[in-house]
Amino acid sequence: MTEPTAARPPKALAFDVFGTVVDWRSSIARESATFLAKIDRSDIEPHDFADQWRRRYLPAMAGVSGGQRGFVKLDILHREMLDALLHDLDIDPAALEPALLANWADAWHRLAPWPDSVAGIARLRTAFPVVTLSNGNVSLMVDMARRAGIIWDAILGAEYARAYKPQPAAYLATADALGLAPQELCLVASHHSDLAAARGCGLMTAHIDRPMEYGGARAPDADAAQDWEYSADSLTALAAQMGC
Amino acid sequence: MTEPTAARPPKALAFDVFGTVVDWRSSIARESATFLAKIDRSDIEPHDFADQWRRRYLPAMAGVSGGQRGFVKLDILHREMLDALLHDLDIDPAALEPALLANWADAWHRLAPWPDSVAGIARLRTAFPVVTLSNGNVSLMVDMARRAGIIWDAILGAEYARAYKPQPAAYLATADALGLAPQELCLVASHHSDLAAARGCGLMTAHIDRPMEYGGARAPDADAAQDWEYSADSLTALAAQMGC
Repeated sequence: MTEPTAARPPKALAFDVFGTVVDWRSSIARESATFLAKIDRSDIEPHDFADQWRRRYLPAMAGVSGGQRGFVKLDILHREMLDALLHDLDIDPAALEPALLANWADAWHRLAPWPDSVAGIARLRTAFPVVTLSNGNVSLMVDMARRAGIIWDAILGAEYARAYKPQPAAYLATADALGLAPQELCLVASHHSDLAAARGCGLMTAHIDRPMEYGGARAPDADAAQDWEYSADSLTALAAQMGC
Repeated sequence: MTEPTAARPPKALAFDVFGTVVDWRSSIARESATFLAKIDRSDIEPHDFADQWRRRYLPAMAGVSGGQRGFVKLDILHREMLDALLHDLDIDPAALEPALLANWADAWHRLAPWPDSVAGIARLRTAFPVVTLSNGNVSLMVDMARRAGIIWDAILGAEYARAYKPQPAAYLATADALGLAPQELCLVASHHSDLAAARGCGLMTAHIDRPMEYGGARAPDADAAQDWEYSADSLTALAAQMGC
């Protein structure tokens, strides 16, 4: 935890969600273990399954961001990624019950928060509007927040902007929706690559260290670390730094 | 108050806000009285001023909906409407302090809820996702909700859809963002015209009677009344009807 180097506090906080607020890997592994057992494939290690599902995330969004297709919600991409992963594991998704597949893809709506997230966001919300700046779609964010007991002031980010991070439009549209200049908005994220893109758009930045996001393995963007305006090892620690 | 005639409950509730949730007329009159006094025009009756400001609302949005200009946030329209109204009252807005004018236009961010709104929405939120389906822009909704203590699960409606009600896109995009078919979403509104447009898109409808929205005067859309799925004289009464 370092002291803030920011000259002035932001006017609102925008949160990355997958990894920063919720522990996608443990949640997806836990749910996938159940689904894999139902289809008699308990031989597949569920954390590996979660990692492989997530690994398809950047290429799937790149298809949208590169203009090969129009904007589609992350729900659609999650389902396509699941189907492709099952194929790779010699499982034919067309042979599975449609309701089971839909429920499996929907596991991303049920991700559990890190232990400090609910309390940290609630404390930060006493001083700042708090919004999502996630690639997750609106209904995914709403379901997750209601389940976890997180209160957001607005769900912004990719679906609102119709552009996926790290495209500048995702960051800039979120600031604009809040009536703020980019430098008045602070992105809170565990990923250096996300923070770097936000900084490139003029946003302030707060890094949250989540060493267990990849089960203890080195983060793929570890080399992109910079000296962020805020840096903390939890959202409650960030709240303390910000005087909430 | 009538019994619900709906065959099945909705999966989410989308709220009109101006008039349904907040008492725009009293709030704008109260704030305008202060601003009018500051510019030595206390001769202008503040409720008349509020009514005249609001009367410019439909024509201003019609310019956007009719395609004469691209989508602009309601904040911009509110400011343009204020400038035009001041001109009509022989007040030159260019001669006033910019900060005073900006603050006056911002009065729409500070509208006060009806006495039953905060409790009613909180009760309804225990059973249904609750979102805004207002023509108000995101930052206006966020400021108003934080000030009033209203918790929304998402801010949807005109700015998200980039279309003003009663254009079908405003209703349909809100349902789509929630991952719902139109008939699974219920609009909660005090205006028959709004409910009629929502029904035309397939949404369910809940009418909230707000006889004091126009200071006791007849509502301009009183003749558009229909037999709505739900009908109540407050949001707490609606919550009771819906079993919350």
